[in-house]
Amino acid sequence: MTPSELIARKRDGNRLSEEEISFFISQFMANHITDYQMTAMLMAIYLNGMDYEETTALTKAYIQSGIALDLSDIPGTKVDKHSTGGVGDKVSLILAPIVASQGVVVPMISGRGLGHSGGTLDKLDSIPGFRTNLSLGEFREVLKSVGACLIGQTAELVPADKRIYALRDVTATVDCIPLISASIMSKKIAEGIDGLVLDVKYGNGAFMKTPEQAESLAINLIKIGHQFGKKMVALLTSMEQPLGYAIGNWLEVEESLRCLRGNGPSDLMEVTYALCSYMLILGGVAGNVNEARDMCEQAIASGKAFEKFVEIARAQGGDVSYLEHPDKYKVADQVVQVNAKHDGYIRHMNTYEIGMASVELGAGRLAAEDKIDPRAGIILFKKVGDAVNTGEAILEIHTNRPETIPDARNRLEKAIQIGPEKPARTPLILKKLGDI
Amino acid sequence: MTPSELIARKRDGNRLSEEEISFFISQFMANHITDYQMTAMLMAIYLNGMDYEETTALTKAYIQSGIALDLSDIPGTKVDKHSTGGVGDKVSLILAPIVASQGVVVPMISGRGLGHSGGTLDKLDSIPGFRTNLSLGEFREVLKSVGACLIGQTAELVPADKRIYALRDVTATVDCIPLISASIMSKKIAEGIDGLVLDVKYGNGAFMKTPEQAESLAINLIKIGHQFGKKMVALLTSMEQPLGYAIGNWLEVEESLRCLRGNGPSDLMEVTYALCSYMLILGGVAGNVNEARDMCEQAIASGKAFEKFVEIARAQGGDVSYLEHPDKYKVADQVVQVNAKHDGYIRHMNTYEIGMASVELGAGRLAAEDKIDPRAGIILFKKVGDAVNTGEAILEIHTNRPETIPDARNRLEKAIQIGPEKPARTPLILKKLGDI
Repeated sequence: MTPSELIARKRDGNRLSEEEISFFISQFMANHITDYQMTAMLMAIYLNGMDYEETTALTKAYIQSGIALDLSDIPGTKVDKHSTGGVGDKVSLILAPIVASQGVVVPMISGRGLGHSGGTLDKLDSIPGFRTNLSLGEFREVLKSVGACLIGQTAELVPADKRIYALRDVTATVDCIPLISASIMSKKIAEGIDGLVLDVKYGNGAFMKTPEQAESLAINLIKIGHQFGKKMVALLTSMEQPLGYAIGNWLEVEESLRCLRGNGPSDLMEVTYALCSYMLILGGVAGNVNEARDMCEQAIASGKAFEKFVEIARAQGGDVSYLEHPDKYKVADQVVQVNAKHDGYIRHMNTYEIGMASVELGAGRLAAEDKIDPRAGIILFKKVGDAVNTGEAILEIHTNRPETIPDARNRLEKAIQIGPEKPARTPLILKKLGDI
Repeated sequence: MTPSELIARKRDGNRLSEEEISFFISQFMANHITDYQMTAMLMAIYLNGMDYEETTALTKAYIQSGIALDLSDIPGTKVDKHSTGGVGDKVSLILAPIVASQGVVVPMISGRGLGHSGGTLDKLDSIPGFRTNLSLGEFREVLKSVGACLIGQTAELVPADKRIYALRDVTATVDCIPLISASIMSKKIAEGIDGLVLDVKYGNGAFMKTPEQAESLAINLIKIGHQFGKKMVALLTSMEQPLGYAIGNWLEVEESLRCLRGNGPSDLMEVTYALCSYMLILGGVAGNVNEARDMCEQAIASGKAFEKFVEIARAQGGDVSYLEHPDKYKVADQVVQVNAKHDGYIRHMNTYEIGMASVELGAGRLAAEDKIDPRAGIILFKKVGDAVNTGEAILEIHTNRPETIPDARNRLEKAIQIGPEKPARTPLILKKLGDI
């Protein structure tokens, strides 16, 4: 069994066995299989696919490339959430404290933003002092004492995914369901969870463009989770416009704080409550969706969720005075409004372009090494379906790079369509799949 | 236009433009595109193909990665031959002197053996002193003075092919018609030829298993040659058994010398004469096949072809006393006969396995860095269709590695089938395609 023979088998459309997949990944990690052999294999997988048994084997091989956490000594059920990513998606920051405040442990290992899509780590990093690079030992300690901890992938955890993702990123092999599935599920399973709630997004700001693609990914993820004995729920949610009003790292933390204070926008709260509810049920502290929903609302109304967020931030080194007094945070040097050019309704948003405009302003990165400006971003004043008058502000640009404003403004004006008729409402949460 | 976007275009089954292909290859050679991006592209090409215009563009990009020879200052038409490779194929050694002795210039840049298939360079290297690593300046000088020169690929000539071939070899992307075509044609066109005769082999010892595959490769090669204004002929020839009786480097030189002395085996001479004839016609010194064939036979009978070979060898530093007295050459330490186990006829040869047995004995290489033993190999005493009696020798093993004998013997016994009925004769030269 040579590397080349295994590549040839996938090239010719054959199934690879668990042993073959395990061999390929372990030999790659031992540097006996080269990067250029790996990318030939990845392209063969992209074009010829992998069934869910192969994907499960790949997930297992990824996990075995590092250490998997065993959190069984920490009391309580451990449940995490994973979102496939979008624009303005700050749900994790609101959800983790809500769920942890109700006694379910949330061990959350998140990613950074890349391209139009933001990342939880970048948002948390905008909080002065907040450390997302805890060691796994520190991670366990925070989980034990606080019940939730949000960090980035460490070197010990699923290193194969880290190396392979870097190759996929530059070889046009990213948007491939088996490879996406193994990448997501290996990291989540290695966290030591008992259950997982997935937010699989579809639409013009998501990686999956249609509900059908999102559903096929969700089914694949659920099947793999079941192979590892995890309880799984997936929601298919719309990413046809940004979630909430804020896009950009600190701007999203600020909006999350408003949510935790009980003043969150309805779309963002709807998705957050739905995801939290299934986490509470998987976590065994709520019996059904109604009960779980009441617990979530209570967590916000009582201030317990907000307090839990402060507790998490303090445990991870954050300066919590900024959470208690967000107006302390310095606003970007340039704040410029973009106004409606006609009367009418916001009919459509090109969410991808809005995400890319925020990247241009400094809120994201095009390459992994780009530096992020925590204060940059966009505040929407209007969402799809809202009425606007000519000259009325529809959004606000925040940036410290004035040279980017003309292009970003142009991009945003094109991305937001205004028309005479109010558009039909479309559901935000389309479907639920999984164990409940 | 990023590398990743170009990979994605081929991944999705799109055509690449000449500019895109040229960009990809030149950026690769400038180390702005990595090996792992190249192999992802190669796998996408393998699975989604390239039409002949793309293949022509790839050939051009390969050529432009180095320098292309201009031989217009050397009088006479320049015609080369290329074989897709097989076992016992020593045609170049006989053909080059025949054709050059008739006034057609033969600028021949050949390859080394890899796997079951032998290489002209390894055969020539077995002649004491013979240098196949001439500089392009020396190559021109020998061509001018002798009319034929046989060397290996130099660093200046089509360096892109050299680097990309090394990657294809370990990523299961070798047997792909557009990639094979660009690799072959770029080297031949960069040699400075006016015309090319192809020996496209099919059968169990060839890279193309069926006549249909061989024909499709031949058609592709001819089309590309035409794009560069070259005169092209292709013969489809059978590789269902080794060509001639000798397999192994010096053993094949020895058989070639017998051919040049007029004592060559009929199958080997049939293929050699056919290829030579089309070269003489493309070279403008013969008007038709009959005339050309007479010239070839006359070149052998008169001793002119043999003398030309001696002349070439001398010009390339070879000790020609070994060509004049081949019995001076030391025979391998171990010479062992393999005998027939029953009466009957040789019905079938697994030519690939015979080639691999000769590699095992020391005549070839499995990896590019393996050392070759010039004295190792196999001498067949019988060919397909010959009658044999139990205990009669069917072949002789030559090796200096006695430990390989049991396995090679076993392999050879399995590879050569003896049965009660004489097999039907199959044609050696199946078809001619091209300009004549």
